[in-house]
Amino acid sequence: MDIEEIITKIQPLDLNAQNLARTRQDSLIKPLGSLGRLEELSVQLAGITGDMTRRFIKKAIVIMCADNGVYEEGVSAAPQSFTLMQTLNFQKGITGVSVLSKLSNSKMVVVDIGVNGNIVSENVVNKKIRKGTNNLAKEPAMTRDEVIQAIIIGFEEVQKLQLMGFSVVGTGEMGLGNTTTSSLILMALTDCSVDDAVGKGAGLSDEDFVHKKEIVQKAFDYHKPDKNDPIGVLEKVGGFDIAGLVGVYLGAAYFRFPVVIDGVISASAALLAFQLCPKIRDFMIPSHGSREPGYNIAIQKLGMKPYFDLEMRLGEGSGCPFTFLLIDAAQMILNQMATFDNTAMDNNKLIDIRKP
Amino acid sequence: MDIEEIITKIQPLDLNAQNLARTRQDSLIKPLGSLGRLEELSVQLAGITGDMTRRFIKKAIVIMCADNGVYEEGVSAAPQSFTLMQTLNFQKGITGVSVLSKLSNSKMVVVDIGVNGNIVSENVVNKKIRKGTNNLAKEPAMTRDEVIQAIIIGFEEVQKLQLMGFSVVGTGEMGLGNTTTSSLILMALTDCSVDDAVGKGAGLSDEDFVHKKEIVQKAFDYHKPDKNDPIGVLEKVGGFDIAGLVGVYLGAAYFRFPVVIDGVISASAALLAFQLCPKIRDFMIPSHGSREPGYNIAIQKLGMKPYFDLEMRLGEGSGCPFTFLLIDAAQMILNQMATFDNTAMDNNKLIDIRKP
Repeated sequence: MDIEEIITKIQPLDLNAQNLARTRQDSLIKPLGSLGRLEELSVQLAGITGDMTRRFIKKAIVIMCADNGVYEEGVSAAPQSFTLMQTLNFQKGITGVSVLSKLSNSKMVVVDIGVNGNIVSENVVNKKIRKGTNNLAKEPAMTRDEVIQAIIIGFEEVQKLQLMGFSVVGTGEMGLGNTTTSSLILMALTDCSVDDAVGKGAGLSDEDFVHKKEIVQKAFDYHKPDKNDPIGVLEKVGGFDIAGLVGVYLGAAYFRFPVVIDGVISASAALLAFQLCPKIRDFMIPSHGSREPGYNIAIQKLGMKPYFDLEMRLGEGSGCPFTFLLIDAAQMILNQMATFDNTAMDNNKLIDIRKP
Repeated sequence: MDIEEIITKIQPLDLNAQNLARTRQDSLIKPLGSLGRLEELSVQLAGITGDMTRRFIKKAIVIMCADNGVYEEGVSAAPQSFTLMQTLNFQKGITGVSVLSKLSNSKMVVVDIGVNGNIVSENVVNKKIRKGTNNLAKEPAMTRDEVIQAIIIGFEEVQKLQLMGFSVVGTGEMGLGNTTTSSLILMALTDCSVDDAVGKGAGLSDEDFVHKKEIVQKAFDYHKPDKNDPIGVLEKVGGFDIAGLVGVYLGAAYFRFPVVIDGVISASAALLAFQLCPKIRDFMIPSHGSREPGYNIAIQKLGMKPYFDLEMRLGEGSGCPFTFLLIDAAQMILNQMATFDNTAMDNNKLIDIRKP
């Protein structure tokens, strides 16, 4: 399938299922609306799957790992080999997302979509396009064909998950230099300034931070990425990781999975997917409010607000495990709480007629 | 033990354990500080238990259930018998907190500390002081002895939990009229206005909302509760549920449990406990930002901010289960992530020397 065909086949949320869910929420034994955003989430989930009783038992986080040629401009505080190191670390259970994923019993799907190094490991899915993008400060990061290849890789990972019985997916990434690429994407898609978009990433010095902003502004002026051509934005200033995540969002909407947005890189991919096909937004679930400055720009453009305020800025998909639990909570509330219909009062003593 | 003795014996956080936790956080394989508030929480937990490796396996929510005499003034939208009904419903797994508590495998301890009705159930701890307080619009809600009795009941519930191997506790409540009592407590302790403190509770009409504010203001003017006498505040305008929760906070600090604050009623009890003994604050963990207006006043006075933005206003302890998971997450991150010391790079290939 090509991207156009995927987009054409994405269906909107199931309004009938949403109405049923809303009606049931309003009949539960609680003050109307008192479960707030959990209620809204349960209705959204019903719209995604078409069945409000559907559980989300098997959960996965797709972690797209890739290097970025722009690293050589000095935009990152850590050695480039950290991309490779962490790609290999995820399945050892010792990174941030690895530890957190145990909380919600989530599988991690670690995809090498362009890491600068040779990986031979059964723990990493080998989808390497090549060993990192070109340096976007000097030339387009990749070819248009590579963008499409990366998006399809992401799509196919969700397809595989669906075949294995998974029903909810989160987005994670690893790649030195990817706060630079995501900043450029946000500038292209939202017309925000370099000062709004660029943060210190994994911990730049003040001096290097100024330098990073200069690199980003120069690259932006050079490429003039056009928001009406999201594929072209990725070609010029994107990364394999972000393009792969765009494919995960497409796949989620196509296969009717709720898909969790993590931090700024994941959110910039979400914004690209939204630009490709606005309907995809309805399948997205925000998670935590990242401390990276571009995050708020992206999430507001998507018309969302985060559920958690943890002041995190780690990436890796680390906001997904909590949000999976929130999804479980919303679904359970809707299906397991009693309704006023199935409770009755008898002589001041409750009788729950659902569980006699 | 009396309250004075309990307070005298509460020890501050263990600074040495906190320093060890902080040092370890800063050595984990992530950018410094990138796990934000999860890092701070892990340090707080280490200070509470004195041992950063301590897990919080057995979790409990103490739900204090009681009626309030002020109900007869028409301050609540629902029948008073809802207090009794929900007290009996918790252990059936059909209320909001019952469903959510499954997420974190938490025990609910449902305490009848003053429900207006006869409860004979193995699912409810019978600690009934009497069948609801006096109408605070006309006279003090309870006697000073009853306040102390209720606080000790809360304290002893934590003591029982400790003997059963529990190590973390959350605060829940059920009681028609308790947004009225909590509003009065907040006005007494923070000097906020009736407009700031009073919300629509479980869903009052606009007309009844105006009436509720009048009742609250009149009661406040009549009793003139004195913030420097927290026991006296409870005597005049409190409820058995809130006094019981004050005891839970005292017990948590005494037995060195982290204790989770839920919504506005739980937060007003937290503020009373803080007023009794400022050290207790260090044992408290906020959860979600309740939609009840008084909540923000209470939580800001405590110098905290919530972790979750779910726009909930249910009470029952419904914010605790998520927060227990956050506690698990903080503890796991600190203990299970690798440190830079136990990873090393060899020829661009990672070797994790902790798990060879």
